Amino acid sequence: MIKETKIPDATIRRISQYSRPLERLLGQGVRVVSSEKLADLCKVNPAQVRKDLSYFGEFGVRGIGYDVRELLREIERILVSDKEWNLCIVGLGNLGMALIGHENFKKRGYRFVAAFDNDPRKIGLHLPTGHVIQPITKIPDLIQDLDIEIGVITTPPLAAQATADLLMESGIKAILNFAPIQVRQPECCLVENVDFTVSLDNLAYHLGKDDSSL
Amino acid sequence: MIKETKIPDATIRRISQYSRPLERLLGQGVRVVSSEKLADLCKVNPAQVRKDLSYFGEFGVRGIGYDVRELLREIERILVSDKEWNLCIVGLGNLGMALIGHENFKKRGYRFVAAFDNDPRKIGLHLPTGHVIQPITKIPDLIQDLDIEIGVITTPPLAAQATADLLMESGIKAILNFAPIQVRQPECCLVENVDFTVSLDNLAYHLGKDDSSL
Repeated sequence: MIKETKIPDATIRRISQYSRPLERLLGQGVRVVSSEKLADLCKVNPAQVRKDLSYFGEFGVRGIGYDVRELLREIERILVSDKEWNLCIVGLGNLGMALIGHENFKKRGYRFVAAFDNDPRKIGLHLPTGHVIQPITKIPDLIQDLDIEIGVITTPPLAAQATADLLMESGIKAILNFAPIQVRQPECCLVENVDFTVSLDNLAYHLGKDDSSL
Repeated sequence: MIKETKIPDATIRRISQYSRPLERLLGQGVRVVSSEKLADLCKVNPAQVRKDLSYFGEFGVRGIGYDVRELLREIERILVSDKEWNLCIVGLGNLGMALIGHENFKKRGYRFVAAFDNDPRKIGLHLPTGHVIQPITKIPDLIQDLDIEIGVITTPPLAAQATADLLMESGIKAILNFAPIQVRQPECCLVENVDFTVSLDNLAYHLGKDDSSL
């Protein structure tokens, strides 16, 4: 068994990103990909690709490249993405509605098994996805009964921390927070705060640079 | 002028992420932060923080730390985030509606100046944000007239590439794509494909590791 304790989060994130173009290449019938090509598709440098993958053992053949199907299978193994994860979502506004029906989650083994809101007008509603919106008072029981491991927060910012606290007290193991506020990272639970504007900042940085070089 | 040509995208992304806890610290009245503390808040290692910031010159005082306000101002300068950017959004489903009203965009200088859809039932609708949904046939004219630099795609996956092509032909400089399909990167335009599941994969990786270590 390979020791996997000191692998940086950034490597895990890039490994996850590598799988996207690999799936596309596999769909196009491409069998072998070089680290240069994969790096180009993911906008990192080839040395980074080789270094990231080297954390998990020896992949690929020098001068030839990686077997696309084999590499994808290895990435799935690394990311435990052959497992199905039970998720709940709290906050069924536009963002919550968009995420609960988003294709990528299902495709990657992330299954929403419960949806919660505190708005009396929403509680009891049947969603097109088949979910019925539950009151947040049911969070503790349903997390236990449905074996929910990851909670997704799409509440307004002022409700996000209290929602996170309730999820943690109910035994959730990880939280993905989309509310525009940083949820505190406790000892007991993993927290990821998603901020769409990080990607925009990256685009803006490059646009700004282009402008100033004209 | 510092040469900024070889700065990796990952550094730009982390610099953008550093600004989030820094803003919170500033709001709490904290004046100085060590690279260790900042690294801890951003879940990277302190050497990474120091290396990332060193690309842009000398910040901080050895053994003391960074001046929070000064560091934030420098990051804003690096990311050109003191500039306002004009954005349009294409596809006013749940995700489009969530993004056009999302607080983080406005707060960081990203201003949606136009909203497009091809659904006759949506065209002409007045949104709570003040926008009126325009038909996609108006994309070329409005990108020019309103000086729109960045296009955000929230269409269904099958429409995403055609939407990207239309935006590029109309002179857009950068695209942020939220549709669950990778939009091709042409020569003329920057493309960022956003995939929510990368963050989930990172959580799942750590949860899977914890389970197997029990």
